[in-house]
Amino acid sequence: MILATLDNGTPDGRLVIVSPDRTHYALVPVATMQAALDDWQAVEPVLRAISQFPAPLDPATIAAPLRRAWQWLDGSVYSTHAELMQIAFGLPPLDTDRPLMYQGMSDRFYGPLEDVILPSEDHGIDFEGEFGVITDRVPMGTDAVTALDHVKLIVQINDWSLRTLAPIEMKTGFGWVQAKPACSMAPFAVTPEELGAAWHDGRVGLDLHIQWNGRDFGHANGRPMLFGFGELIAHAALSRDLVAGTIIGSGTVSNADYAKVGSSCISEVRAIEMIAGGRPETGFMKFGDRVRMEARAADGSTPFGLIEQRVIPK
Amino acid sequence: MILATLDNGTPDGRLVIVSPDRTHYALVPVATMQAALDDWQAVEPVLRAISQFPAPLDPATIAAPLRRAWQWLDGSVYSTHAELMQIAFGLPPLDTDRPLMYQGMSDRFYGPLEDVILPSEDHGIDFEGEFGVITDRVPMGTDAVTALDHVKLIVQINDWSLRTLAPIEMKTGFGWVQAKPACSMAPFAVTPEELGAAWHDGRVGLDLHIQWNGRDFGHANGRPMLFGFGELIAHAALSRDLVAGTIIGSGTVSNADYAKVGSSCISEVRAIEMIAGGRPETGFMKFGDRVRMEARAADGSTPFGLIEQRVIPK
Repeated sequence: MILATLDNGTPDGRLVIVSPDRTHYALVPVATMQAALDDWQAVEPVLRAISQFPAPLDPATIAAPLRRAWQWLDGSVYSTHAELMQIAFGLPPLDTDRPLMYQGMSDRFYGPLEDVILPSEDHGIDFEGEFGVITDRVPMGTDAVTALDHVKLIVQINDWSLRTLAPIEMKTGFGWVQAKPACSMAPFAVTPEELGAAWHDGRVGLDLHIQWNGRDFGHANGRPMLFGFGELIAHAALSRDLVAGTIIGSGTVSNADYAKVGSSCISEVRAIEMIAGGRPETGFMKFGDRVRMEARAADGSTPFGLIEQRVIPK
Repeated sequence: MILATLDNGTPDGRLVIVSPDRTHYALVPVATMQAALDDWQAVEPVLRAISQFPAPLDPATIAAPLRRAWQWLDGSVYSTHAELMQIAFGLPPLDTDRPLMYQGMSDRFYGPLEDVILPSEDHGIDFEGEFGVITDRVPMGTDAVTALDHVKLIVQINDWSLRTLAPIEMKTGFGWVQAKPACSMAPFAVTPEELGAAWHDGRVGLDLHIQWNGRDFGHANGRPMLFGFGELIAHAALSRDLVAGTIIGSGTVSNADYAKVGSSCISEVRAIEMIAGGRPETGFMKFGDRVRMEARAADGSTPFGLIEQRVIPK
């Protein structure tokens, strides 16, 4: 099942169900994605019964699947990425006993084609290509195996990051506020079975193709997460209930053969350059720059659709 | 103007306006606090025109003013607290050029008399008495002076903290997830003029009286913030718009004469004990423990009402 949210001028948009070929949609009897997730057990069969998609889908009208969420928690669980950043920037060694996770701003997610407004090029504007899941309500103390039953939808995310601000905030231990502005989501939120064998062990085994200003930047595969989404959800739910519509992210997708497949954020490329040659060569994004991201299956299909955005000044 | 939210079984509760003596209320033509903040300019005069409060107010029915918010950002700007924690726990020195702030979970705030459910006494259960403000929409890049115009309501908060988890999360630089479960709010959200001279320079100059299991714990004054709420809002808004209903917290209220006025969290008392005697003497909260918090004005009035909560196991 493929869901999307159309921008109808309201803060939450209009939930629709999308045809298997992602060209048409049908309105559904539940107005918003949040409302569907709040009552997923009752709503899911109603949505699954829909088989006619009368309306042509205009990509320009598609908002983020959740335009705003009550909670957004982003992991960082690709050990290649963690090790590269650790070596290049002298960060503390990765704790392999527990996932890294930060609490992000959740009141706004950009749609896949929206311009991204940021205050300054001096902040080190960077993208982070990643995958995420959206849960229904997860009770406090849920274990990692049970947690996977709470994964209702899978999404593709660009976690915008401001790299010159990040280390200043990291060194306080309080985490990121200024360095993590609003994120973006690809058009389609899909139920796990839509990914077939690519959804396995709580991981998305798809290549995430990224282009920066039209040039190939990377196509790392989502599979090698040190902790899967089940572990990430359980980690988040240790001391809190997770509200329906909680979004959990994987962090920047990164693979051990980065020399071959590239990276999913500029910062990682700079880390590789620093390790190899003592200093970073690649600059961060400039206003007017574009980034394009789409996960591709083996058959060439793109389950989540396309993120293609331009960075502009406020 | 004094506002409150009644628990009517819905996620957002029912907004009411409260009489000056805080004993009666009137229903208002806007259903929820969030809806009022979304359209504050139009709603405020409607609320201010209400002068009859026909219904007696039962404290047991009062929820947090915002039962859930799209964004909750908590500062830590009392330099006495920062210095004590720094000395006792070997934290990095306080950066006096920029406020400390973390992004907290915002999808649930406990009401003032609700039991607080936590998974384990081993996590070092602690309270943090503090003040907070609720803003309308704040555009990205708003300066600290203009930011104060966006303070629509002032609140009193208990920022529940799990102290054995906090340093593990701090050392990653990613900030807190597990160590910062849902917070609590006192019954009444008040407009700035309700505090009279106690609201000055973006600070709440009231003593925050705290009792733990019936014993006086502290009554530190909110005034000596190193950065006021104007600076905190501007800090938060550097790279994002703040959505209407954003809550900004001060962090644990703390005064230089802590030997006389006490503290607003157990962790600070333990830090003082460590500095004085090499080790902490005071344990954290046990299940069944109660904490009571109320800010008091010079005339003995309590503008935000009373938080009185018990900690219980899940």
